[in-house]
Amino acid sequence: MPTQKSTLPLSEAPKPTYNHTPENIEDLCQNLAEQLFTNDTTICFSKSKTRHSFAQPHESPAAVFRPRTTEEVSAIAKACHERNIAITSYGGGTSLGGALAATRGGICIDFQEMNKIIQVHEDDLDIVVQPNVGWVELNQYLDEKNLFFPPDPAPGAKIGGMIAMGCSGTNAYRYGTMKDWVLSLTLVLADGTIVKTRNRPRKSSAGYDLTNLIIGSEGTLALVTEAVLKLTALPKNLHVGLAVFETMAEGVSVAIAIMKSGTVLEAIELMDAAGTHSVNTSKLVPALTLLEKPTLFLKFSNPSPQTVTEQIALVRSICDQHHSLSFEASGEKERIDTLWAARKCLGNSFMSMKKDETDVFIHTDACVPLSNLARLVAESEALIAGTGWFCCNMAHAGDGNTHTAIVAPLADKAAVEELLSKIQRLALELEGTITGEHGVGLKLRDLLVEEVGKEGVDVMRGIKGALDPKGLLNPDKIIRLESDV
Amino acid sequence: MPTQKSTLPLSEAPKPTYNHTPENIEDLCQNLAEQLFTNDTTICFSKSKTRHSFAQPHESPAAVFRPRTTEEVSAIAKACHERNIAITSYGGGTSLGGALAATRGGICIDFQEMNKIIQVHEDDLDIVVQPNVGWVELNQYLDEKNLFFPPDPAPGAKIGGMIAMGCSGTNAYRYGTMKDWVLSLTLVLADGTIVKTRNRPRKSSAGYDLTNLIIGSEGTLALVTEAVLKLTALPKNLHVGLAVFETMAEGVSVAIAIMKSGTVLEAIELMDAAGTHSVNTSKLVPALTLLEKPTLFLKFSNPSPQTVTEQIALVRSICDQHHSLSFEASGEKERIDTLWAARKCLGNSFMSMKKDETDVFIHTDACVPLSNLARLVAESEALIAGTGWFCCNMAHAGDGNTHTAIVAPLADKAAVEELLSKIQRLALELEGTITGEHGVGLKLRDLLVEEVGKEGVDVMRGIKGALDPKGLLNPDKIIRLESDV
Repeated sequence: MPTQKSTLPLSEAPKPTYNHTPENIEDLCQNLAEQLFTNDTTICFSKSKTRHSFAQPHESPAAVFRPRTTEEVSAIAKACHERNIAITSYGGGTSLGGALAATRGGICIDFQEMNKIIQVHEDDLDIVVQPNVGWVELNQYLDEKNLFFPPDPAPGAKIGGMIAMGCSGTNAYRYGTMKDWVLSLTLVLADGTIVKTRNRPRKSSAGYDLTNLIIGSEGTLALVTEAVLKLTALPKNLHVGLAVFETMAEGVSVAIAIMKSGTVLEAIELMDAAGTHSVNTSKLVPALTLLEKPTLFLKFSNPSPQTVTEQIALVRSICDQHHSLSFEASGEKERIDTLWAARKCLGNSFMSMKKDETDVFIHTDACVPLSNLARLVAESEALIAGTGWFCCNMAHAGDGNTHTAIVAPLADKAAVEELLSKIQRLALELEGTITGEHGVGLKLRDLLVEEVGKEGVDVMRGIKGALDPKGLLNPDKIIRLESDV
Repeated sequence: MPTQKSTLPLSEAPKPTYNHTPENIEDLCQNLAEQLFTNDTTICFSKSKTRHSFAQPHESPAAVFRPRTTEEVSAIAKACHERNIAITSYGGGTSLGGALAATRGGICIDFQEMNKIIQVHEDDLDIVVQPNVGWVELNQYLDEKNLFFPPDPAPGAKIGGMIAMGCSGTNAYRYGTMKDWVLSLTLVLADGTIVKTRNRPRKSSAGYDLTNLIIGSEGTLALVTEAVLKLTALPKNLHVGLAVFETMAEGVSVAIAIMKSGTVLEAIELMDAAGTHSVNTSKLVPALTLLEKPTLFLKFSNPSPQTVTEQIALVRSICDQHHSLSFEASGEKERIDTLWAARKCLGNSFMSMKKDETDVFIHTDACVPLSNLARLVAESEALIAGTGWFCCNMAHAGDGNTHTAIVAPLADKAAVEELLSKIQRLALELEGTITGEHGVGLKLRDLLVEEVGKEGVDVMRGIKGALDPKGLLNPDKIIRLESDV
């Protein structure tokens, strides 16, 4: 008699039973010889490119498959389902927080061969792609068609991983996150069943929203083998602006005032004084020396040049009202590239703050309502003061998503992680989330319970149980399947 | 041993077992006397206000409850779960397609008493509301704060029902659907468990997207007792335009050209010649006589008057290129109200096309990629030609959602429904959906199988089974729980 409850608590969840014996894996590999890339267990994708994968040395897949079609992915899933073998998937390898770790071993599906653009519909502003198309390459392809795909996470990210993580980036304030740019998905479920979530109309009320359920599910509910993405017109008349303030609070107030004005910019990013200092120190943008103060990085664009001029004038006056120390805006290509490079190089500039090669670089991904953003930053700074660690706050100020990043000696790693957990809890107190765009992975599972409650996680576990009762797809990510794993 | 599959096919779904005996209902009512509004079974909410409810006379709830808090809703759900009593919920009563029908009897939760605005956060552009707040009243409240909530379905619709149906309206092309305007939901699950899907940051990657799973689930997965809604700035410098064409295809081409230009209007609506004829015939807008030709209704708005002027000039030139017969745009309040009234009165104007009081008025809700919209309309017209019925096509041309509406004698009702099914199947052939904004209800369940496949519906049934294993919440909507109900 199955439970009649609306949730699946951990205490009632059946323990997954994997069969990862060499014989079973070998049998799988022989049956799927055509898709098999390697069963050399020294190749561990989950450790390869991602600094933050959180994968332990033993958390390696025992074989790697590189399918070329939805049907091949389905065949692999079906064969694994029959044999109780876990599957992790791999795309660009840029995910954070451990989503790529093969915690149970099993096999890896590497989507490397599924990297084709299948069809672009210019009049419908949509495109059909395989999961291993990168968003950077996609935009290069779209550029000459005057089209644009907005989500902009790490440069190496692929569409499949971006769907898995529900990612976003600097364009999210203007264009929304990945959830706003996927029309339809072709899925392979844990037992090999193929489902297309819907056709490609711009909107639909046809049943449960399977598309959005899969986006952000980190590969735990289904494997994505094809996606229909929404596109928009390429932004025109791009301008970039810089506004410098004495305090972060003033920068946040400018972002709020812009939002309430009804004027829509392309991006509103806010870097603290430490961030500007690290950019200068890194010398990654030789043509630029930033004032080492809280700085707004602004992007303007509109089909009408006159509108851009008006937007800049409006924002300049808002900055004046909030005591900006300086304001600059430019539409010259070279200056745009220089100014925005200072924003984009921030992650790499932290490396220059390392005092020792072994220093760790760890950060949060909290997101709070805008009116609480200044308080989040101030209280984070207070928590960190006196530690001697390098700390920087970088906020997607248009949507309240803030990365508090710390560079510290390796010996302090545990202390840094404990302190960042405090900041994440602070974000929850400030009515925010522990993760605005990076996902839960392994790292944030217990904090997720604090965010949505035990009941919220138990609902998620119930959904996992409905779609993947054997717990085969990317086990242990987002929600625990067993209390001690 | 529960199924280990990723789906729950109808053939394997356990039959729900309700206990709707008078004694069991009476016991429930006595236990929940405080929330009980009536157990007068002559009151049937599912028949009351909605022409299209599809409820049969016997499909009435046996008692109606009017809770005031989340906790009271939870107590009702818990008591019904213990007693195996089905629950349908009721808000504005404007839903189409049968979502309100109490197919199994049971009880009704009427959210009438939960109609409060709880808290508005002006700097965060969000608002916390109970489910029975109407979107019209909400916007009246927001107007003086210079804020706006975009989704605009039927005027009587309440937030709870709008969430249930994943609705949209004329603003969807510009602002998106309900899914884009809900930040967080407080839910009561089938067994009474209370879950808050998340806090109120503008974005989140914290686990499965329960918010979007519930939006559009038509009351079958959870009862919504509170919602955090996104807001935006009130549109400024509103202008309305009318452009008349010889063919629908030209109007569609204009919509596509506007989309590709990158210029974002407020609304792009396309009415066919029959529609303009019915508006004229109805005399619902005495100050206006429309040319009886395909007509685009356009809305322009921007914080900058200059931008609006430029937008109008651009759209005028696009219309010229597509052989518009006339073009008008106005920013005068009176003229705006007159022109837009012609668009908004269309539903009521159909009533004037009835030759007999008993004539039926039935319509589709298909949505196709824009490039297929003209073909959908042309082939729909071809299907209807020669029937003698009055037929009109009204398209939300910015997103491809088209209502083909027919007024016909009552005796032809079955024939009309059969023909409209053909049009819905045509929408599927054209890579569209059977329902862009009205939902599935009872009416479209079998067509949903054609749209997402048996496997897609079986995944949905699996999710239903995980959250509501007894099948108590709004039974039989969207997906069948039994093959013959």
